[in-house]
Amino acid sequence: MLLSMSDEEGIGRITLAQVAEQAGVSISTVSKVLNGRQDVAAPTRVRVERLLDAHAYRRTTRSAREAPLIEIVFHELESIWAMELIRGVENVAKAHDAGVVLTESGTRHAPGPEWMEAMLQRRPLGVVLVFSALPDEVKKQLRARSIPFVIVDPAGDPDPDVPSVGSANWSGGLAATRHLIECGHRRIGIVTGPEDMLCSLARLDGFRSAMAMAGIEVDPELVLFGDFHVEGGYDRAARMLDLPERPTAIFAGSDLQALGVLEAARVRGIQVPDDLSVVGYDDVPIARWASPALTTVHQPLRQMAEEAAQMLMRLRAQEPVSTRLELATSLVVRKSTAPPPPGPSGHRPRKENGAGGS
Amino acid sequence: MLLSMSDEEGIGRITLAQVAEQAGVSISTVSKVLNGRQDVAAPTRVRVERLLDAHAYRRTTRSAREAPLIEIVFHELESIWAMELIRGVENVAKAHDAGVVLTESGTRHAPGPEWMEAMLQRRPLGVVLVFSALPDEVKKQLRARSIPFVIVDPAGDPDPDVPSVGSANWSGGLAATRHLIECGHRRIGIVTGPEDMLCSLARLDGFRSAMAMAGIEVDPELVLFGDFHVEGGYDRAARMLDLPERPTAIFAGSDLQALGVLEAARVRGIQVPDDLSVVGYDDVPIARWASPALTTVHQPLRQMAEEAAQMLMRLRAQEPVSTRLELATSLVVRKSTAPPPPGPSGHRPRKENGAGGS
Repeated sequence: MLLSMSDEEGIGRITLAQVAEQAGVSISTVSKVLNGRQDVAAPTRVRVERLLDAHAYRRTTRSAREAPLIEIVFHELESIWAMELIRGVENVAKAHDAGVVLTESGTRHAPGPEWMEAMLQRRPLGVVLVFSALPDEVKKQLRARSIPFVIVDPAGDPDPDVPSVGSANWSGGLAATRHLIECGHRRIGIVTGPEDMLCSLARLDGFRSAMAMAGIEVDPELVLFGDFHVEGGYDRAARMLDLPERPTAIFAGSDLQALGVLEAARVRGIQVPDDLSVVGYDDVPIARWASPALTTVHQPLRQMAEEAAQMLMRLRAQEPVSTRLELATSLVVRKSTAPPPPGPSGHRPRKENGAGGS
Repeated sequence: MLLSMSDEEGIGRITLAQVAEQAGVSISTVSKVLNGRQDVAAPTRVRVERLLDAHAYRRTTRSAREAPLIEIVFHELESIWAMELIRGVENVAKAHDAGVVLTESGTRHAPGPEWMEAMLQRRPLGVVLVFSALPDEVKKQLRARSIPFVIVDPAGDPDPDVPSVGSANWSGGLAATRHLIECGHRRIGIVTGPEDMLCSLARLDGFRSAMAMAGIEVDPELVLFGDFHVEGGYDRAARMLDLPERPTAIFAGSDLQALGVLEAARVRGIQVPDDLSVVGYDDVPIARWASPALTTVHQPLRQMAEEAAQMLMRLRAQEPVSTRLELATSLVVRKSTAPPPPGPSGHRPRKENGAGGS
């Protein structure tokens, strides 16, 4: 499906004057609502918004501002993804002589109303939202003002209604697991992400498919959901490494979780990659700096953000864009993977080693 | 010394009309130059800029824009410091209902002209510049438009002419070294930053002072300049660890360099902290996630950026601000430091271990 900002424009379009008349307010009040001004009473604002929505109003006049802006909104700026995504938007903005406005706002599911209000006043060229799905309310407000918006969605849970850019999570899980199998591992554990994120499930399914294709049975004790943080990786790996028969390889589901796996191995005196292979996911800069450097699945975050920002420009130019773009992931082999240690089915008994704190 | 935006205002102030008359152009042309518009011929622009500068022109009318912006400009967005600094500015911007505009521009010494032009059009509340010193040109342009600006300068090389925020590098170097001495180390190496950055020299001097106070002689072979990157830490640590009498502790000068030291130790089979203690500097998030978690000097980057953004607000309100603010650093003890291994002067011979690639 292709979307264009002009889909619903054309004959029969309602004018500001008509909205004003139907709402029983002045044109300037309607204009204030469109521009996010605060000096409109809440009931009036609601009445006007409903009419704009009911008539699928689309602003046609483009902002004449001389200093164009692209906005990027995060729920969680702490995210290790944030800097790469900012870089991608910044690259495209620079090419269009635009500034980048960065906001942390709202919940995991929607930017907050304070952002919406300020953004409407700034009238940016467009908005890149790092959220999975968006409430209808938010979509309607953006559409009524003809502000193009695109979702960057590394979590892999796209809103079918909005142009979005993600990456191929299932294929990434498959590639990571195949690499371990090709190294000779058979007893392979996975710490995937949170159970309620589609990307976790897609990576896990990729893992299962690779195992099934190789005819290897998956031990349910070696399949755990994590939290995409270092602590979750540490904790889940500790559980697997303390099993009577521990895995010889762990697919860690994210680079942060992989760092937790490395630490859980280190405090047990388990050498990576000699005794245990570890694969991360994301390929954020720390993956390269870990000891040993992580073999990981490269998620092209910067490129995803660039694509999203370029989609904004195409939407502004009323060119058609895809509703969903999934960029390919690729395996980056570094130093945290190797053939399994010798022993029955690649296993040798756990070293007892009291050293190292926890 | 205290600076205020209004220092040079008052009686005898030149007006736009006077500048226009002296330049032989219209008032609207002068106004275009002030607003960074491109439709002014270069020679005219230069003439007007010179007159504005010669008369120390200060714009008095504040921008009436409804969507206020604070700008932060980096030379190098890749920097591991960037995200923490952005967070600090974002916190203050949020409190003032302002958006944050993020730009990567220019060289290590100055933002580029394309940023200056776009910024003048955006007319932000103020600008946080992550640079050490600024060319006079840049300072004059910002002052003529009454746009407050503050330097955040983790490199510790403040421009005496501009309000700036840094942190206490000498004290940080002292604290890191004292901690190692208190653990019992005497053969301590340092990999400080690049030779041309004041912060590298300040940290090194703090190291030397701590050693001198403890009556320990510094071995020149154990004092190396680095590059503040992982590779530099790896390379310098490799040189020290391959000495006939290797150090029992290394103060790594930055967290990234410390990661390089950890890797150089790992590939030699040297255990951290049992065989080698390592101290970082910065306390960026990866310090906590390293294996083992890094003992490091906390540089309050977020707080530095918050202070800088708050100084902008005080400058706007024509309140006096300090020209230089240095925030305290503090040592964070984690798991990469311990007493030295037993042996003559805390030294035991290098383990021969062929394992681990490089």
